[in-house]
Amino acid sequence: MTSENKELEQIGEFELIRRISSVLDIIPDDPPLFTNLIKGISDDAAVFRPSPEKVQLFTTDAFVEGIHFDLTFTSLKHLGWKAMIANISDIIAMNGIPRYATIAISIPNKIFPHMVEELYQGAANACRKYSCLIVGGDTTASIGGLIISVALIGETEEQNVRYRNGAKPGELICVTGHLGSSIAGLKILEREKKKYEASPDKSNFKPALEPYKLALEKHLMPKARLDMVQIFKKNINIGALIDISDGLASELHHICEESNVGAKIYEHNIPIETITGIIAQEFLEQPTDYALYGGEEYELLFTISDKEYEKIATLTDDVTIIGRVTEKDVILVQENGEESPLPWGGYDHFKSKRISK
Amino acid sequence: MTSENKELEQIGEFELIRRISSVLDIIPDDPPLFTNLIKGISDDAAVFRPSPEKVQLFTTDAFVEGIHFDLTFTSLKHLGWKAMIANISDIIAMNGIPRYATIAISIPNKIFPHMVEELYQGAANACRKYSCLIVGGDTTASIGGLIISVALIGETEEQNVRYRNGAKPGELICVTGHLGSSIAGLKILEREKKKYEASPDKSNFKPALEPYKLALEKHLMPKARLDMVQIFKKNINIGALIDISDGLASELHHICEESNVGAKIYEHNIPIETITGIIAQEFLEQPTDYALYGGEEYELLFTISDKEYEKIATLTDDVTIIGRVTEKDVILVQENGEESPLPWGGYDHFKSKRISK
Repeated sequence: MTSENKELEQIGEFELIRRISSVLDIIPDDPPLFTNLIKGISDDAAVFRPSPEKVQLFTTDAFVEGIHFDLTFTSLKHLGWKAMIANISDIIAMNGIPRYATIAISIPNKIFPHMVEELYQGAANACRKYSCLIVGGDTTASIGGLIISVALIGETEEQNVRYRNGAKPGELICVTGHLGSSIAGLKILEREKKKYEASPDKSNFKPALEPYKLALEKHLMPKARLDMVQIFKKNINIGALIDISDGLASELHHICEESNVGAKIYEHNIPIETITGIIAQEFLEQPTDYALYGGEEYELLFTISDKEYEKIATLTDDVTIIGRVTEKDVILVQENGEESPLPWGGYDHFKSKRISK
Repeated sequence: MTSENKELEQIGEFELIRRISSVLDIIPDDPPLFTNLIKGISDDAAVFRPSPEKVQLFTTDAFVEGIHFDLTFTSLKHLGWKAMIANISDIIAMNGIPRYATIAISIPNKIFPHMVEELYQGAANACRKYSCLIVGGDTTASIGGLIISVALIGETEEQNVRYRNGAKPGELICVTGHLGSSIAGLKILEREKKKYEASPDKSNFKPALEPYKLALEKHLMPKARLDMVQIFKKNINIGALIDISDGLASELHHICEESNVGAKIYEHNIPIETITGIIAQEFLEQPTDYALYGGEEYELLFTISDKEYEKIATLTDDVTIIGRVTEKDVILVQENGEESPLPWGGYDHFKSKRISK
């Protein structure tokens, strides 16, 4: 670390860890989380008792500056929240409950200690909401950008785990919530950033964000669908389950490939918010493309028999049927009734960069 | 990712993950690892059964290019090995057995697919040697340097876990192996890099590495002390336990602070290899400083009663007594008998950068 960030150099790694620990001194509303945690931050590893009769779920996801986020329009609090949500959502996508997390963070010298605390505050907020605990981590300097890498352990009964490979021909294909809003929110943020950069009087620049609030929130502070895990627990048997982090098209292909089945989905059934349609129109783009290829929604995509769907429908109105599992081929039926193969697409880190630099 | 690395762009994230998976298709010599793993790479999270009656240990450690390693003299295979060893060592430092790992890797465009495979090969080699399994991960592009972040789960019986806070006045302070060799090896690598850069005929440059082999190996391919966990299991009761990743001085202070005790260690008792002394001499530096502040050794530092030590001494000759736990103050007794407070020191990422740029 160069001398640019005197503050971080002065306090050093151990004081930074002390400050982070005090930010994380929270009490989620789930006593077993605490009684089962024997040692949290402050030793070589955290120690916890797994719940008897349950299997453990283990996942990791990293967020990289310039690839997943742009600090000119993402607050550190939002970033901490989102990095944690992405991992929590992976546990939920196995039909599990998130439990314990670690955060490894690589900090460039433009980031000051209070900003690191904000980032952990955001992550802690997500943990509080989804009843999990940050029990360890690693802080290092970075000579590139900011990188935050979360690892998360969850758990559930073995018979409740759901995989990508559980889809069977004839099942309904369902999604939760609305799709495409996250990428729509990002488009707005990128546009306002460009306007700001081109603005002659930067100190008086006011970004036009208010009308797009719903989409911006979906991009900056997405929710994970733990509510669905609670619903599934009510004796509802789902087939395949995955979360939509890379876009509907990509995730549907994952399910079909792993389950060795096909799918037919109907464009007019894909749930899209009004504001997402408006934003797509402003950019002369198709809202369906946002929904199919946008990603970072953390909604769920799952398959289910007609009978099981009837049970779900009595418990929530936030699930939409978008098509049906078939023997083979992944087909999109367009608004005009035309059928065509659904391109794999999706957000692939090595083929396209999300944030235009 | 820019167009510089066409190969990675062409194959895309999913093909890269497929290649990584095939590198990881290994069979460590530990059947329960496999029978308890229900799902590895290829879903949103890995699924495994925790061993009955055992607690889980959970840790994470990141390696950052330009901070922890320099790719001009570190092969990707060595890097993968070391990143995994650092985490395995953290589990061992709790007196536990490593079990399941995830790797999140951020890949800059100068890194080609076969290099990524090499990195995983190194990590897999470490896993094979220490009987753990890579069960998941995340691959992203990086616009900065290469970053590898490992998270690891281990386990042991609750009564066997050892903490930093278990030291009691009167106990002996012991270390395994030899100290200072890792930083000595790094010094040689850095010197040869400078020579190479200054060399007019680079194609014929031959670094002088052979005489320093032992120190270079300690730096590039350190071992974790799982053998000590096996020895401790033979009814030997240790007090505090920590691994030496940040240097002896720093780790001793950790133990003393957490246990609310002091320590007196004797300079002439600190085990240092001959080659480390030779290298220190070449750089006009003190070998004791390498041992106290060098770090990245992954040896163990622990406290133990005289009686328990007698038991250990019959099982291994690779443990050295370096001093004794006291009521307060951390004191170094120098070769000449003079006593002075031991500075905290150690390698702190935000106060000094290991790799000089």
